[in-house]
Amino acid sequence: MAEALADYESQAAAVLPTAVRDFVAGGSGSETTMRLNRAALDSVTLVPRVLAGVDEPDTTGSVLGSELAMPVAVAPMAYQRLLHPDGELLLARAAAEAGIPYVISTLSSYPLEKIAAAAPSWFQQYWLRDRALLTSLVHRAAEAGCTALMVTVDVPVMGRRLRDVRNAFALPEDVVAANLVDITTDAHAAASGVSAHTAAAGVSAVAAHTASAFEPAVSWRDLEWIRRESELPLVVKGILDPRDARRAVDTGAQAVVVSNHGGRQLDGAIASIDALGPVVDAVGNDCVVLLDSGIRSGTDVVRALALGASAVMVGRPLLWALAVEAVDEALGLLRREVRDAMLLAGCADLAAVAGLTTGRA
Amino acid sequence: MAEALADYESQAAAVLPTAVRDFVAGGSGSETTMRLNRAALDSVTLVPRVLAGVDEPDTTGSVLGSELAMPVAVAPMAYQRLLHPDGELLLARAAAEAGIPYVISTLSSYPLEKIAAAAPSWFQQYWLRDRALLTSLVHRAAEAGCTALMVTVDVPVMGRRLRDVRNAFALPEDVVAANLVDITTDAHAAASGVSAHTAAAGVSAVAAHTASAFEPAVSWRDLEWIRRESELPLVVKGILDPRDARRAVDTGAQAVVVSNHGGRQLDGAIASIDALGPVVDAVGNDCVVLLDSGIRSGTDVVRALALGASAVMVGRPLLWALAVEAVDEALGLLRREVRDAMLLAGCADLAAVAGLTTGRA
Amino acid sequence: MAEALADYESQAAAVLPTAVRDFVAGGSGSETTMRLNRAALDSVTLVPRVLAGVDEPDTTGSVLGSELAMPVAVAPMAYQRLLHPDGELLLARAAAEAGIPYVISTLSSYPLEKIAAAAPSWFQQYWLRDRALLTSLVHRAAEAGCTALMVTVDVPVMGRRLRDVRNAFALPEDVVAANLVDITTDAHAAASGVSAHTAAAGVSAVAAHTASAFEPAVSWRDLEWIRRESELPLVVKGILDPRDARRAVDTGAQAVVVSNHGGRQLDGAIASIDALGPVVDAVGNDCVVLLDSGIRSGTDVVRALALGASAVMVGRPLLWALAVEAVDEALGLLRREVRDAMLLAGCADLAAVAGLTTGRA
Amino acid sequence: MAEALADYESQAAAVLPTAVRDFVAGGSGSETTMRLNRAALDSVTLVPRVLAGVDEPDTTGSVLGSELAMPVAVAPMAYQRLLHPDGELLLARAAAEAGIPYVISTLSSYPLEKIAAAAPSWFQQYWLRDRALLTSLVHRAAEAGCTALMVTVDVPVMGRRLRDVRNAFALPEDVVAANLVDITTDAHAAASGVSAHTAAAGVSAVAAHTASAFEPAVSWRDLEWIRRESELPLVVKGILDPRDARRAVDTGAQAVVVSNHGGRQLDGAIASIDALGPVVDAVGNDCVVLLDSGIRSGTDVVRALALGASAVMVGRPLLWALAVEAVDEALGLLRREVRDAMLLAGCADLAAVAGLTTGRA
Repeated sequence: MAEALADYESQAAAVLPTAVRDFVAGGSGSETTMRLNRAALDSVTLVPRVLAGVDEPDTTGSVLGSELAMPVAVAPMAYQRLLHPDGELLLARAAAEAGIPYVISTLSSYPLEKIAAAAPSWFQQYWLRDRALLTSLVHRAAEAGCTALMVTVDVPVMGRRLRDVRNAFALPEDVVAANLVDITTDAHAAASGVSAHTAAAGVSAVAAHTASAFEPAVSWRDLEWIRRESELPLVVKGILDPRDARRAVDTGAQAVVVSNHGGRQLDGAIASIDALGPVVDAVGNDCVVLLDSGIRSGTDVVRALALGASAVMVGRPLLWALAVEAVDEALGLLRREVRDAMLLAGCADLAAVAGLTTGRA
Repeated sequence: MAEALADYESQAAAVLPTAVRDFVAGGSGSETTMRLNRAALDSVTLVPRVLAGVDEPDTTGSVLGSELAMPVAVAPMAYQRLLHPDGELLLARAAAEAGIPYVISTLSSYPLEKIAAAAPSWFQQYWLRDRALLTSLVHRAAEAGCTALMVTVDVPVMGRRLRDVRNAFALPEDVVAANLVDITTDAHAAASGVSAHTAAAGVSAVAAHTASAFEPAVSWRDLEWIRRESELPLVVKGILDPRDARRAVDTGAQAVVVSNHGGRQLDGAIASIDALGPVVDAVGNDCVVLLDSGIRSGTDVVRALALGASAVMVGRPLLWALAVEAVDEALGLLRREVRDAMLLAGCADLAAVAGLTTGRA
Repeated sequence: MAEALADYESQAAAVLPTAVRDFVAGGSGSETTMRLNRAALDSVTLVPRVLAGVDEPDTTGSVLGSELAMPVAVAPMAYQRLLHPDGELLLARAAAEAGIPYVISTLSSYPLEKIAAAAPSWFQQYWLRDRALLTSLVHRAAEAGCTALMVTVDVPVMGRRLRDVRNAFALPEDVVAANLVDITTDAHAAASGVSAHTAAAGVSAVAAHTASAFEPAVSWRDLEWIRRESELPLVVKGILDPRDARRAVDTGAQAVVVSNHGGRQLDGAIASIDALGPVVDAVGNDCVVLLDSGIRSGTDVVRALALGASAVMVGRPLLWALAVEAVDEALGLLRREVRDAMLLAGCADLAAVAGLTTGRA
Repeated sequence: MAEALADYESQAAAVLPTAVRDFVAGGSGSETTMRLNRAALDSVTLVPRVLAGVDEPDTTGSVLGSELAMPVAVAPMAYQRLLHPDGELLLARAAAEAGIPYVISTLSSYPLEKIAAAAPSWFQQYWLRDRALLTSLVHRAAEAGCTALMVTVDVPVMGRRLRDVRNAFALPEDVVAANLVDITTDAHAAASGVSAHTAAAGVSAVAAHTASAFEPAVSWRDLEWIRRESELPLVVKGILDPRDARRAVDTGAQAVVVSNHGGRQLDGAIASIDALGPVVDAVGNDCVVLLDSGIRSGTDVVRALALGASAVMVGRPLLWALAVEAVDEALGLLRREVRDAMLLAGCADLAAVAGLTTGRA
């Protein structure tokens, strides 16, 4: 039993190897940005309304054609079998049960088709050096029934996550980048993907794999290309500068995700919640704005929406819950927290949340 | 002996069960707002005046027809028999002795009539689902001689107080919601009220009772109804947004209490003291503004008045004092602190306090 | 040997009874203002100048006709025999040696005449209820050769210093308010002055004495009276509000001391250094402005002067040094720190210090 | 192996005498400014750009005619043989290998000629009382092939570094101010230079030497003189006030270094990074602005450049690395961090870094 999402982290600590815990928990560099995400969220104060006559708040919303039981999506996260043998399947099914979208990671440890069959999903696309493989994934996602294509743009290279480096973290043999297997000529080599990379001096095996597989030099032209290549709604994840948000919209994005990758990419980057306002000001009328990085409670969801987000993405807490087979409970808890926070803030629906006054402590 | 109100908390800790301590001490969620109440008050700096020729400051004031020996009222707090067998009676008598109003909680553990007979009181009204019961209480309060009706509007549902959930906190058998007994058909069931509710998964017994007994969907129309139903001066407690303060006044409220319920309702809500200024700006000329949540010393009282409050409400410190049979001493100490702070700030009376300059550290 | 003024506090701790340490170290209430004094000073940043061609900075100045070897005066502090048998005599001689004024406290434990004979002094006047005694002190100070009369206006009543209350602090028999002895009818009773007061419930003996001996209701008319009564330059100590500074000047004060009494009076009061700027803006052209409360180093002296003070007063560190017979060394160290800070900031003289840019960290 | 520059400090701690560690690590006074340097850098947030199409960022730049492989120079630091027998030679060669300038200290423990022969260098000039010696050094630097003359202007006297005073720190016999030997009449006395100074009361031997050898009263006229005396590009190090920056440029400086000497001179001085903006605003169009003090990572380099610096100087971390013979690794790590931070911030080159938006946490 957990009473708050934070409880899952300590529960998971009891069952996970240290290196896996660190892989999930860690940020890049001195983890300044990771800490900043929380500090900035905690400093956002809400001014609740009263006597709003709300019996049961309507937590539902609609984003990119998906109906959401609450304004939350499961953030794309790699290698979920690190946490539980059923990994992505378990979490995706819980998301479906909870009525929210699950975002399949390019680096999922089950094939995207298998996950998409289990639950309504969006597909998160990393930019692979191998254009054929990349193209194939874009089409596989659509064919598998994913309803949105989320292109992550903040990983030209993996941020240096010192915990992983110090742990010489490498994937266990049975956890592979499953989406990258089938279409290669040497299935085994691809299947073993990351695990084939060993930790070199100053580089974790995961980072080595990323460096070899990901294309750093992605550009707006590439985004245009993928926009044409897929008919799915395009979501650009990892935007912090409003100029980039504007350009993403002009390039055809239907949504942007304000995110610093949970403090795992550029250490020193602005807290996501602090970047949200300027992005909303720039493109809020023209596209959906999602907020990612640091969300840990229903109050955080309300904070993000009061500052202009349409929904948030939640990551690490669900991995901790996955490790202790409590994802249904975790999502139920979060749903309840969102509902209670809305009720306590006098909000009948998400539009009312958007109208709350916020301050800074 | 206590030298500061804070001393009572440690003294009470020695005599109370952990679950009762936590019930009193705790806030909702991660207790961000509860901590914020103190941090914000501590950061309010005062600029004292000198050579004001004050021999003995006049700490008295008048609020809603009540004469106050100091600008303080005892906040409404449930189930005071948890702290002492004489509970509300003891604290109400001490308040009378100290010359300040005692506010009887809907959830008092002695019947309101018994408390009102013991001391001049106001009555705090929660919004019960049972309209007959609610109506009855409104009238009982007036008949019992209460001189103001304070409607609490920030508890559409109880905030999730994790300490209570973790403690599976339930009321002992001999502590009941005494006001809810008489008029029900099944006196015993009502009498056992909260204690009949057991702690379910993720829900304390107290919260379960609140959920079953309280009406979440209270609206401004309901406030209008109660305004008509009672001839007592109407006080609306739990206002943080100036727009709501304005509407409360327009609905007939003679006072509003700026409060976040001591950090026990919406976690993430603005500190009460930070919400005070905008509310005073909005309605300060049209109604009385009281400040609740976090007051712990005479300096805090002066801070609140310098920022525009007419008086404050004090809660937890008096419960701790109640647990060690020191409520008279506690109120005497607070009165003395208010007096000393006024003298040290060169204030002959409360109007002078209102004229102090404040800053932020 | 001490390398910084802070060292004396730990050295003194080894030789002083706890209650005396607490009497010196403590502030009022929760000591918020005492801590704030340091935090605010530490947050003042200096922008030094370079290539100023300064060989040896001129640290000297002139305040109220006194030539100062550095812009520092010894703050008035009661009962210095608590720290050392020679008490005021030792510290006053050290101040003379260091070329700075010593301010004799009304509550000195040696008669003011004896101290004034030992070193150039100013006299600090508390406002006694006994007007004859008060008048007598004013004249005795002038006759003894004191060159300024500093009226303390922030002690209508003593702040509640909880350490003293908890320690039931009382003066030892051999430490008396020596200035209050001679002119009373019952010399012994007066001599035993404070020690005759025992700690009552919630009141230290020192506070009890203050309450009985001091007049709280001092007014601007009284200040006018004392202005007429004495021909000495008038200094008003304990000003924080610029309106009071203006009125002090209009009443004939030649200097004001921006002070919160080292955090020992109104807890919650603004930090002295934060109150300085507005006071300087209000009266800086018309009188001398001194800064008191929290000064612990040469950098602090430079901070205060850069913000508009003409000089500062230093208190507690010199008492700690007195306890270990190191007052000469302490003042030499401070002089050296002032000199070094000026040299490092490129300041040839105090006027240059006043021209430094400051910021806030 | 180190994964972050911070690692070298702990590694070095295991091999260095405490007094040497403290000599390197310490700041002046209460080390407020030293701590502030880090706090201020940590609070600078970056808003990265995305989809910039950068494959491999160009970290190179050009400062004062030197081509830099990254926008970093090795700060001038005295007595590097304290850390390693090969001292300056080892670090200078590593700098050359890394493609960045090495700045030879006036107080280098190898003769400047020997260092300059080992690697492309700039020469840092302290202002010696002995004008003949000073003149000789200026010319020796040029003859030895140094390509810039960096005059340090923030050491009219050495800041009081209490760690050194408490440790009675003195140089070991085999570490001397090698540049001050040859041209004196008494070679031995000069060679033993600092070590001949013993720690006196309150003064470390190093500070005593500085006091005897350095001229405090340096002025803008002296800067003019040295400008005429040398044909090398003139860099003025230790500027914090924009008025001084302007005057340095008007006096012929081609670069200024915004520095508070790593928090080792005026304690209480503004953080270097906070002083940068105003200096850039004042002279950024007219000269090169470098930033020194507190740089510990590639993110810090990007922060400084985003705020207007052309390059930074790095000090202490390289001394720690020197102590464990890891300077090549350290500079490689820093280069990599700069590269990664640029890639993660979407910056193709240093001009792009200058265009990043920054904020404050």
